[in-house]
Amino acid sequence: MGHRPGRDDRISTHCGLVARAFGADGIIYTFDDPKMREKLLDVVERFGGPFEVVMGADWRSVIKDWVRRGGEVIHLTMYGVPLPEIIDEIRRSKRDKLVVIGAEKVPGEVYRLATYNVSVTNQPHSEVAALAVFLDWLFEGREFYREFKGARLKIVPNPRGKTVINIRR
Amino acid sequence: MGHRPGRDDRISTHCGLVARAFGADGIIYTFDDPKMREKLLDVVERFGGPFEVVMGADWRSVIKDWVRRGGEVIHLTMYGVPLPEIIDEIRRSKRDKLVVIGAEKVPGEVYRLATYNVSVTNQPHSEVAALAVFLDWLFEGREFYREFKGARLKIVPNPRGKTVINIRR
Repeated sequence: MGHRPGRDDRISTHCGLVARAFGADGIIYTFDDPKMREKLLDVVERFGGPFEVVMGADWRSVIKDWVRRGGEVIHLTMYGVPLPEIIDEIRRSKRDKLVVIGAEKVPGEVYRLATYNVSVTNQPHSEVAALAVFLDWLFEGREFYREFKGARLKIVPNPRGKTVINIRR
Repeated sequence: MGHRPGRDDRISTHCGLVARAFGADGIIYTFDDPKMREKLLDVVERFGGPFEVVMGADWRSVIKDWVRRGGEVIHLTMYGVPLPEIIDEIRRSKRDKLVVIGAEKVPGEVYRLATYNVSVTNQPHSEVAALAVFLDWLFEGREFYREFKGARLKIVPNPRGKTVINIRR
């Protein structure tokens, strides 16, 4: 939520990449930017998926529909309940999870619509970081061992350089 | 490392905010941007410190001096050794730690100069996220309980809104 064209292009792209790398099924943006979508789908094409990219969504409808369908909404904000205090409850719940992140000014309505308002430290920092740390805690580090399907490229860990494998399909 | 003015302004600012929020003593940038420095120091002034911001540094000298003085250098890269495999060794070492993060093209020399090349997943995502997750693992979540000194503002966790305390000094 709350993308400012130009200024936030890199941040919003990073949010999408983080969502994919840390195990989310997709990302829903509240603005439309065909170039950004293309960039993200290019990463999916090269490094694998599945990962869905939806753009131009209306945040209010997305959140309300999610709840109506039985899902839960986790809004990451520096004002919320500390992650360590609430993560067990969120992990235990089997409901589909919608994580909401935004730039500086998220409307008060989001705080009321969210199932949980969760803080990743009560300090100002970054929605990119908040999303990554939240997903890392949620999945308990399993994102490090995630296999992506249909990847053309695969990185093999290397202590001293770069090893990239090209996978022929 | 590797800031592109304009395009990367928000990303580089977020890196500084993440460094502070997740427990680093400071950040060293390889470019100079007085406005960004001011923005970061304003957060330190409001939310507390200590946190140092150095700008316009030469990366080669910073890394070489760090090693010469007995410190270790942890370069975060999608090509490196998975964080879970190396974090215990890094935690156990009592040497001062310099974490190196950069934009797309980090020179090969960095991979050779680094004590550790560490991956926060072998997927493309974000230096902001890599830094946050690395520091979260390094400090084992202690950043959630960190007290900053000299803060004028303090956030009190709130499940449903915003609670900010003004501290008179």
